[in-house]
Amino acid sequence: MRNLTMLTDLYQLTMMYGYWKCGMHKNRAVFDMFYRKGSDVTQYAVVAGLEQLIDYINNLHFSEEDLSYLSSLKLFDDAFINELRKFHFSGDIDAIPEGTIVFPGEPLVRVIAPIFEAQLIETALLNIINHQTLIATKACRVVQAAQGDSILEFGLRRAQGPDAGIYGARAAIIGGCDATSNVLTGEMYGIPVKGTHAHSWVMSFPDELSAFRAYAEYFPTSCMLLIDTYDTLKSGLPNAITVFKELRAKGYEPTGVRLDSGDLAYLSRECRRRLDEAGFPNVSICASGDLDEMLIRDLKLQGACIDIWGVGTKMITSQDCPALGGVYKLSAEFVDGRVVPKIKISENPAKITNPGIKNLYRLYDKDGMAVADLIALAHEKYDSSRPLTIFDPVDTWKTTTLTEYSIRPLLVPVFKNGQQVYESPQLMEIQAYTRRELATFWDQYKRLLNPHRYKVDLSDELWMLKQSLLKHRDGQEIPT
Amino acid sequence: MRNLTMLTDLYQLTMMYGYWKCGMHKNRAVFDMFYRKGSDVTQYAVVAGLEQLIDYINNLHFSEEDLSYLSSLKLFDDAFINELRKFHFSGDIDAIPEGTIVFPGEPLVRVIAPIFEAQLIETALLNIINHQTLIATKACRVVQAAQGDSILEFGLRRAQGPDAGIYGARAAIIGGCDATSNVLTGEMYGIPVKGTHAHSWVMSFPDELSAFRAYAEYFPTSCMLLIDTYDTLKSGLPNAITVFKELRAKGYEPTGVRLDSGDLAYLSRECRRRLDEAGFPNVSICASGDLDEMLIRDLKLQGACIDIWGVGTKMITSQDCPALGGVYKLSAEFVDGRVVPKIKISENPAKITNPGIKNLYRLYDKDGMAVADLIALAHEKYDSSRPLTIFDPVDTWKTTTLTEYSIRPLLVPVFKNGQQVYESPQLMEIQAYTRRELATFWDQYKRLLNPHRYKVDLSDELWMLKQSLLKHRDGQEIPT
Repeated sequence: MRNLTMLTDLYQLTMMYGYWKCGMHKNRAVFDMFYRKGSDVTQYAVVAGLEQLIDYINNLHFSEEDLSYLSSLKLFDDAFINELRKFHFSGDIDAIPEGTIVFPGEPLVRVIAPIFEAQLIETALLNIINHQTLIATKACRVVQAAQGDSILEFGLRRAQGPDAGIYGARAAIIGGCDATSNVLTGEMYGIPVKGTHAHSWVMSFPDELSAFRAYAEYFPTSCMLLIDTYDTLKSGLPNAITVFKELRAKGYEPTGVRLDSGDLAYLSRECRRRLDEAGFPNVSICASGDLDEMLIRDLKLQGACIDIWGVGTKMITSQDCPALGGVYKLSAEFVDGRVVPKIKISENPAKITNPGIKNLYRLYDKDGMAVADLIALAHEKYDSSRPLTIFDPVDTWKTTTLTEYSIRPLLVPVFKNGQQVYESPQLMEIQAYTRRELATFWDQYKRLLNPHRYKVDLSDELWMLKQSLLKHRDGQEIPT
Repeated sequence: MRNLTMLTDLYQLTMMYGYWKCGMHKNRAVFDMFYRKGSDVTQYAVVAGLEQLIDYINNLHFSEEDLSYLSSLKLFDDAFINELRKFHFSGDIDAIPEGTIVFPGEPLVRVIAPIFEAQLIETALLNIINHQTLIATKACRVVQAAQGDSILEFGLRRAQGPDAGIYGARAAIIGGCDATSNVLTGEMYGIPVKGTHAHSWVMSFPDELSAFRAYAEYFPTSCMLLIDTYDTLKSGLPNAITVFKELRAKGYEPTGVRLDSGDLAYLSRECRRRLDEAGFPNVSICASGDLDEMLIRDLKLQGACIDIWGVGTKMITSQDCPALGGVYKLSAEFVDGRVVPKIKISENPAKITNPGIKNLYRLYDKDGMAVADLIALAHEKYDSSRPLTIFDPVDTWKTTTLTEYSIRPLLVPVFKNGQQVYESPQLMEIQAYTRRELATFWDQYKRLLNPHRYKVDLSDELWMLKQSLLKHRDGQEIPT
């Protein structure tokens, strides 16, 4: 496993040095990781990356090479370098399990640890959770647009480096993709891998028909032929049908054809018609080439006869929104055993943070559909046998009173005093969980464009704490 | 070093199996990696990633775990798995050195190898070169917009996974950034790392002034204070000036202030004025927060007084164009020792490939400014003592005749018969080379919006070969 301890911003180390010099480094601090409202793409998000965050935390230590590099920067004294030599994570981490649907402003990860440790891990934590949550979310949108058709993840060659390909494919599976072309991700996570041949295969043979025949010979039970190398309808499809007939004569049923260019709506309908006429109604049509959720939706509206969608660049990079924008903000500190809530003020009200040690709850109606989420202070207790009135944290006159409802805490303990207390499920289990999660949300929250805003409210007590801190803008302590 | 041999698409392995079954696997094939016209962002590109491609090639081998995983897929027979056990790269790779300015359609990497090997490496080659070239190019645009101001790479937390942060920072340095916040990249490549403190530092102290005083105490020679935690002009700046005066009284000159929110044009002008009035004309103003080349250009046009720009999310993800879109296309095969050029036809003329084994030349005028690039067949010879007429490959009536010119081949040998024959320069040397390269291009080619198209022409012989293959659309062999 790679040691990513040095995968951090320099300012984490300069701050750690400062805290250590002040004797503040053991002060326990509380940080929340959350994302702010992004584009349509991230109105809801599918959390992902926790398994890699756990690996990262378990592996945290500075090697001697790391320490001599840090010494060479001439920023830190030797005693501090020695302190880093002993570094390990001793704090608590609570997080929302992978595959859960979440919304802007909600704490996805909560870290309670000596500030020395909590600060070091900020950058990698954000990097890992931001990336995988983004791609799982994008994939979820693509899967939704395909309305039950199969989605294959094909983006490795256009991903932003090896990890973006490896963990992007992992996240795409969480978001609902059926398989990936990425062999390494398949090996690492035991998920289905798919792939047949490229244009170069066809071009390597004297003609297309020989190329197809050779492919059918070696892969008789998974014969999917790419038919657009020279001319889809004049050459590729007729040659494929010839080979499919030969294959059937040998007792095998062909698998499919793949289109990678041209007008996919027209070509797929024409392929479907001719394949049906030729006696191959069960041969699938797979399409690839610059697809995303919007194009898939439009192609389906235009009657495209596509059963399998190979989605690459635009999903693996989340092209229209290539960063989730998650942040990690100090929300409290322990001073003499007492919790001192902290707030980050901003001119922009959306950037003002929620203070205190918090929990996140999801409220469901009697049919099990999600009604609203509630961010509350960790010590608050809820009893679903009693009515609950929630209110919009901005337009506070907008209230809702729930009577028949159930309440579910979303954060689970992952590390306790530095010890891992949570086991990540298998990837395909996470995928199944995501699917169940999605089913608890009404369509209006999942719409691809301009989705309705899902209610994320603050508890009375949290709202009042926030207002009180806002009135003391210099960051001084507020009695709680 | 990580073994990324399995970082490939499954279809590379199924094709390898097919070629091996046909006895074609040792046939030498020629592949070109190039990118097609993208957005404004990639009208020109700064090549990057070759060092990592070299590491990848040198490390290629299947581990026993990899082989048993591949066996478990039930696609391949044991003899093939045994063939993979012996796998190593034995081919030739020529590539354009990192930091070179390139244009759409130009071969950035040329692979001549047994098709078995050339096919396996396609995916990782594209992944590595696509990613780093994209980020180096984006960074180059940002650096250009800053017109000599310093650019710091701050994007790790929003990068698409650890590698995107690590190699994205590497590429950003190639593109001209002065330093990165990413400590691991600093350690790996010996490049400058920068960083001071975050809002959480300020929030961890009873008040902002104590936080600034503490920071100044531990970093007296690099005291850059973040002044927007509570209120930039009412609190942050006056507190910073107080601490700067105290620091000066102790014999140290303060370094700077950093703005991370609000209207950077107004705030920076106001900070400059008040810092100057307070006797700190040499204190730098650093700005960060959702910056990209367009915003930097606009802020400068509006008289922002910013000396150092910290650029994160939008550069590390190349937000407006998050994939380069490079492809890897078969351009020739050796049959009985003879070169058989290959072409990929497409309805879309821009997607038709250039056949044959090719070289790329850059033509310079007598002042050393780049005039045009010429893609030619590898066996063609050029003599710059004789006039050269070049022509547009689409509008062939557009010709230019060069008399006083020089000609420079851009591809250099990197692997010869599987042996590395090229040493990557140090990263800061590559950065200096990029700067020299950029100086040979007129501004119209480097404009941020709607840059003028730089001429990339085909030699007579290549053009005629392409036309002749286009007339034989079934991919049959053409006598050469």
